[in-house]
Amino acid sequence: MKHARYMQNGRVHYGTVSEEGVLLDEKGAAVSEQVVTWLTPIEPRNVVGLALNYADHADELKLDIPKEPVLFLKAPNTFIGHRQAVVAPTGIEYMHYEVELAVIIGRAGRNIDRRNAMEYVSGYTIANDVTIRDFVGNMYRPPIRAKGFDTFGPMGPWWVDRDDIPNVSNVGLRTYVNGELRQEGNTRDLIFDIPYLIEFISSFMTLQPNDMIWTGTPKGVSHVYPGDIMRLTIDHIGSLENPIVTES
Amino acid sequence: MKHARYMQNGRVHYGTVSEEGVLLDEKGAAVSEQVVTWLTPIEPRNVVGLALNYADHADELKLDIPKEPVLFLKAPNTFIGHRQAVVAPTGIEYMHYEVELAVIIGRAGRNIDRRNAMEYVSGYTIANDVTIRDFVGNMYRPPIRAKGFDTFGPMGPWWVDRDDIPNVSNVGLRTYVNGELRQEGNTRDLIFDIPYLIEFISSFMTLQPNDMIWTGTPKGVSHVYPGDIMRLTIDHIGSLENPIVTES
Repeated sequence: MKHARYMQNGRVHYGTVSEEGVLLDEKGAAVSEQVVTWLTPIEPRNVVGLALNYADHADELKLDIPKEPVLFLKAPNTFIGHRQAVVAPTGIEYMHYEVELAVIIGRAGRNIDRRNAMEYVSGYTIANDVTIRDFVGNMYRPPIRAKGFDTFGPMGPWWVDRDDIPNVSNVGLRTYVNGELRQEGNTRDLIFDIPYLIEFISSFMTLQPNDMIWTGTPKGVSHVYPGDIMRLTIDHIGSLENPIVTES
Repeated sequence: MKHARYMQNGRVHYGTVSEEGVLLDEKGAAVSEQVVTWLTPIEPRNVVGLALNYADHADELKLDIPKEPVLFLKAPNTFIGHRQAVVAPTGIEYMHYEVELAVIIGRAGRNIDRRNAMEYVSGYTIANDVTIRDFVGNMYRPPIRAKGFDTFGPMGPWWVDRDDIPNVSNVGLRTYVNGELRQEGNTRDLIFDIPYLIEFISSFMTLQPNDMIWTGTPKGVSHVYPGDIMRLTIDHIGSLENPIVTES
């Protein structure tokens, strides 16, 4: 089932989305997308991101494949919903989208074994880990500024239940910019898969409901600019669309 | 004024601490410390930490002084209050305390000028940025695991108003382990001072009330072990004390 969170007439609603793609309110009545503001489908306490978790992306950045997961935290000021604007800072050159399968934690756990790690997953959404490559310099440097600008963490448009994705190790991800296909990958190419990531992260950190793991992006990042529209598609979930605007 | 948050009889209280160091409840009545559990004095949405922000500490780690602030985010699973136990993981060698002056943001702001940055500060507390040096490897690597274990972010015991520290550029910090002085520094040796940090961080991130900046630690980190008691003292604030215990 697709679970949406949106604002209408100043109130937060928890709706669903039908098979046909129609937004439904709590009572199951159709709602026009024209009159709603999409919110992040989840309000995470903590988002752990992965750098370099697809070999082809490490290769395009001319970096070695990491021997253990390279983690960062995505800052809470970055999160926005579907169709909200990503604000490009002035004076930078290399702004990139990054399509990522976002794993949503459904129950608390520590020291989780990879063999039953999927029991801790409630579902999935699409995340755009927007990054200013100007500020990355060293890929292992904490990318707090590179990935931490306000609005740099779109997610949505809704989240889907875990069982809505029949095989999470074979899911296609794509990014279109102004309708043109720019990035394409598949979760079969993850270096560290979801059970491994849950085991690794929970070895030091208690995972809580609504915490998220953004599992990394495949090959195909490219520059985007104000005026562009990013549309990120993941099989079995849908499409997350955000325009880029200038500051002011 | 010293502002405390504590649990008594299953309820969260917001108290104060008298000049004489006596904990007072909301009505000003004295409360025995024996019957309370200290909570973090602030519940931060976001904590931005500084690596290598004292030249003498960069020197003891044999690292160059950074040209711009080296930031990380302290994960929310780490935060505990005064006297709560820090849990040492098994199988590690180098566990370190780090005493830090923690700046508390009092009002929201973006693109704050350093000349009026202090207007955005509501006060200060003491933070212990506990770190497993085994997992640092490269000082510029995101230290998510090194600094992200559950219980690795003690803070408190209370917070003080901004004006309780007459000159924040001349504040002594000390760490005692089992009563022995191990670490000593002064905020006059900060590489990037508080107004500069607020300007830098708010250049990309909207700072919100209760966000915090942990300003870095001076020279004098050393190994600590289960059974040790860490006591971190900062002038004009007080002393934050936490024992170290083993897992299980």
